[in-house]
Amino acid sequence: MYVKKILDLSIAGARVVLRAAIAHAETMGVPQCVAIVDRGGNLLAFERMEGAKLLSQHSAMQKAITAASHRTQTGTLPAELGVGIALATGLRYAPIAGGLPITIDGEVVGAIGVGSGSDEEDIEVAQVGIEALKAVLAEAE
Amino acid sequence: MYVKKILDLSIAGARVVLRAAIAHAETMGVPQCVAIVDRGGNLLAFERMEGAKLLSQHSAMQKAITAASHRTQTGTLPAELGVGIALATGLRYAPIAGGLPITIDGEVVGAIGVGSGSDEEDIEVAQVGIEALKAVLAEAE
Amino acid sequence: MYVKKILDLSIAGARVVLRAAIAHAETMGVPQCVAIVDRGGNLLAFERMEGAKLLSQHSAMQKAITAASHRTQTGTLPAELGVGIALATGLRYAPIAGGLPITIDGEVVGAIGVGSGSDEEDIEVAQVGIEALKAVLAEAE
Amino acid sequence: MYVKKILDLSIAGARVVLRAAIAHAETMGVPQCVAIVDRGGNLLAFERMEGAKLLSQHSAMQKAITAASHRTQTGTLPAELGVGIALATGLRYAPIAGGLPITIDGEVVGAIGVGSGSDEEDIEVAQVGIEALKAVLAEAE
Repeated sequence: MYVKKILDLSIAGARVVLRAAIAHAETMGVPQCVAIVDRGGNLLAFERMEGAKLLSQHSAMQKAITAASHRTQTGTLPAELGVGIALATGLRYAPIAGGLPITIDGEVVGAIGVGSGSDEEDIEVAQVGIEALKAVLAEAE
Repeated sequence: MYVKKILDLSIAGARVVLRAAIAHAETMGVPQCVAIVDRGGNLLAFERMEGAKLLSQHSAMQKAITAASHRTQTGTLPAELGVGIALATGLRYAPIAGGLPITIDGEVVGAIGVGSGSDEEDIEVAQVGIEALKAVLAEAE
Repeated sequence: MYVKKILDLSIAGARVVLRAAIAHAETMGVPQCVAIVDRGGNLLAFERMEGAKLLSQHSAMQKAITAASHRTQTGTLPAELGVGIALATGLRYAPIAGGLPITIDGEVVGAIGVGSGSDEEDIEVAQVGIEALKAVLAEAE
Repeated sequence: MYVKKILDLSIAGARVVLRAAIAHAETMGVPQCVAIVDRGGNLLAFERMEGAKLLSQHSAMQKAITAASHRTQTGTLPAELGVGIALATGLRYAPIAGGLPITIDGEVVGAIGVGSGSDEEDIEVAQVGIEALKAVLAEAE
């Protein structure tokens, strides 16, 4: 198979994830930066909420890229190994929590990165974003 | 005056600019990357349309940062000088067209950067985004 | 459409392009660096032939990434604009010839970047690589 | 609210902070680098005292940017997490002590970063700088 048919997140899908994540962060009262990338790790959509940490714009993107690349939640490796990979990839890898892959029909189609809250808050916001996409996809069937 | 009252673009304002810009680019049939930054040059919102060039994600952001910094449209300096400034600022300055400051009540409150089309297309999309913000602000008065 | 079905180059397809490109460069007697990326601009395969310029490892990759991003042959813009885009994208854009998109069924599925020869040699090698993939795909039908 | 009125540190305010910080460091006999940024993390004023470490020019700036971004004192997170954030933000985050936000009327209007002394010395110098600004503002009322 020289070329393969794959699923990729569209900008429409990215908007669903982003808006649900932002809405949930607002409900939580936790300002966040939220980044959505496609399966190739290229940015599709981003928002920084009022009051979110400025530098989280960068980490949110890196978390999303990392989750799209590794196809697992970020921040789960031992700290030393995480630092090693970050250095070995020229700072393209985020060794902290808040990045989650977006998996549809068993395929990673993109990822979300959330930053500015605690690890738990970041992960919760990311999960709500992904669930929103799954909900609209289930409806559409 | 040790501290000063200033106007800054909010995420709500950034969304108005972004959505109008994207809607206009869709009408034109030109896929674009659109980035909105606040007056400090920090990213507020971003979208990459279906079919836009991948690398324009980076140039759209740099154009917006450049327009917020210089408070004028990007890409108007002689090419050699533009290159010089880009190099002298550690590649933080975009020496190409498509970045416009967002000016409200005579104050630059942020900027928009558009990339993936021709210079003229990028600028037109940016202008429409800014006009949309001015329209909602005029209505709100 | 929240997720979309797209075509992407596989590693098997990348090998076909790479081997044909290298074989042709050998026939020409021109040592080359050849890089193949998928549609997201991520490296799939790379080879540096005996005698190729060392630094062409970098330019071959950037040419491939640029061609995948812009979906056109690299090095065709006026030099000043090319330099401006290179600077505005944080040196992710290669403003020189030798990068070609790989288009299958009207869709850009990846790209090839060739560097170390003259512009004409680089382009010829890239074209031969792409033609080889089209030939095996036509056979497979 | 599409645009918002905010407080930002002016260059006049930055000078007050800087001069008080430097004067206090002189009294302590500890040469320091002192950086003052506005709320967007852009440098307003900087001085390196005779005898201060050369490389502290960089860390003082990063500490100030970090404090403006996170709106808290730097260097308080567990070391592992701080390193992770530094890597995930492309080395824009300083995971060490010596950066303090400048808060006026409950709003972070900028930040000061001090480097070249011990953690305690850096923090003390930063605090004296901020107190000086608060004093002149209280007088001005």
